[in-house]
Amino acid sequence: MTKTVTVLSEMIRPLVESRLPDWVEPRFFRTKEEAMAMAPEADIGWFDMHDKHDMATAITAAARMRWLNSIYAGVDRMPLDLLRTRGVVVTNGAGINAITIAEYVVMGMLTIAKGYREVVRAQERHEWLIDSPGKVELAGSRALLLGYGAIGRLIEERLKAFAVDVTVVRRSPGPGTLTPDQWRGRLGDYDWVILAVPATAETDGMIGAVELAAMKSDATLINIARGSVVDQEALVAALTEKRIGAAFLDVTTPEPLPADHPLWALDNAHVTMHLSGRAQDKMFARAAERFLDNLDRWHRGEPVAPQVDLTLGY
Amino acid sequence: MTKTVTVLSEMIRPLVESRLPDWVEPRFFRTKEEAMAMAPEADIGWFDMHDKHDMATAITAAARMRWLNSIYAGVDRMPLDLLRTRGVVVTNGAGINAITIAEYVVMGMLTIAKGYREVVRAQERHEWLIDSPGKVELAGSRALLLGYGAIGRLIEERLKAFAVDVTVVRRSPGPGTLTPDQWRGRLGDYDWVILAVPATAETDGMIGAVELAAMKSDATLINIARGSVVDQEALVAALTEKRIGAAFLDVTTPEPLPADHPLWALDNAHVTMHLSGRAQDKMFARAAERFLDNLDRWHRGEPVAPQVDLTLGY
Repeated sequence: MTKTVTVLSEMIRPLVESRLPDWVEPRFFRTKEEAMAMAPEADIGWFDMHDKHDMATAITAAARMRWLNSIYAGVDRMPLDLLRTRGVVVTNGAGINAITIAEYVVMGMLTIAKGYREVVRAQERHEWLIDSPGKVELAGSRALLLGYGAIGRLIEERLKAFAVDVTVVRRSPGPGTLTPDQWRGRLGDYDWVILAVPATAETDGMIGAVELAAMKSDATLINIARGSVVDQEALVAALTEKRIGAAFLDVTTPEPLPADHPLWALDNAHVTMHLSGRAQDKMFARAAERFLDNLDRWHRGEPVAPQVDLTLGY
Repeated sequence: MTKTVTVLSEMIRPLVESRLPDWVEPRFFRTKEEAMAMAPEADIGWFDMHDKHDMATAITAAARMRWLNSIYAGVDRMPLDLLRTRGVVVTNGAGINAITIAEYVVMGMLTIAKGYREVVRAQERHEWLIDSPGKVELAGSRALLLGYGAIGRLIEERLKAFAVDVTVVRRSPGPGTLTPDQWRGRLGDYDWVILAVPATAETDGMIGAVELAAMKSDATLINIARGSVVDQEALVAALTEKRIGAAFLDVTTPEPLPADHPLWALDNAHVTMHLSGRAQDKMFARAAERFLDNLDRWHRGEPVAPQVDLTLGY
């Protein structure tokens, strides 16, 4: 029997090696050079690398690959057109980071509501504050949630327990929802605008000067999607002139943000360095479990999941 | 008709004056001297002052007072024995701060789980962190909740939405609960130990060296009750020697904490300066509404609420 050549990172080896089925011939790469050398023979590939350009190069070299797996939820840096042309099935990490990202969003909202950053700084000065630097309750506030995938749903569940009035943007109309052509006209109703959309051509720059101007002057923008979803120059201007209350930015353009970028120093900008998905110790274990489960499905001829729609890009 | 002399702070005046019933003769004090001068004639008193000693002195001077109101939930600094002897009805602020305190507790847990304080410091250095300084998910963690009043119930609701496994300590046994004689033996099972008990003789020092030693080495102690509920010297020792993970302390002994106190500088101590209840802008409005409602009840001869049990002390 010809084995199925499966190329994956040495980092994932301890989590999967002893449990790989016997029809799999695993090849583990430690460097981008090894990944490039192994790529042309890969039937199945898991080419995650920190450098997204290297990753795309290895994927491009994997000409016989039928299935590409990734731990990342966002696949916008992958050669999607090429993968579609080649008919490659792509499974991504959608949902693997969802819990911790949803937790991170609520943390961001609470820390801004209570002015917690000022409390941290007061402790560093050994200063007992007499009054709270933030006096907002989540209870009774209103949130607009753009993006209703795995992360959006978990955010909604948590915010509802805080008695936040959550409006979701989705194509199918219903109670507590707005459709994609309605939300812009209602931006001024919300205390929190939460971006949890995939990075696609459609969402590129979806929050620009017009949208920022429509927000309440004390509203907070939360971006856990991609930096490109927001017109960052317009955001810096809105924050500088205090036309919105604050921004909680897990993602920026570019990443890493240069040390001299104005966002670092704005007292109403909260920069969290794309850490929201990493603030857990279960990511690799979850990804390994899912991959092993998908290997069994693949062998039985069943669909692997979750599959990326290579036209929509998520 | 003789009016009922009602002595209350000038601070509350704008929220109640236009809505006081005509049987009330209001007298508003601006200083402790005015409070002292007005106290002997008070039928009803609302003697909240920042200085708890001054407040107790005014209460003591209010010899004909039948009903004492307070915005504070904790009444442990009031002359409870004297009030009991005089047969004074005491209503407190139980529940008025409950929402914001519950929100603050979840914020504390999330910020510790994700190492958020280090993220704040990294932003100040304009440094893009590569990995999260905290990697804990609330989901699947276990919390022991001591104190099941208004605050405790709201904490439980919120934590359940985060998929935290919450165990409550209460006298009546049931699923997901421990009785007051059981919890000490199970302290090692929990990632979070949350103190939301009233300050009474029974809860004084309830967390001491023995209890801290029984906690998991990575567990977090959260105190939103009173500093006196914890043996603070034992806590400082446990934190210094990293025998527990962290402490989130909204309350301390004494308050304010002196600038040279070791808690300020311990990297696993999070000091929030008794701000949790103040991190809202609805406190006075809620207290005023409740007081006006209680005035109507008082006039109709109905029980005012919530009443403090002057023997139990909460």
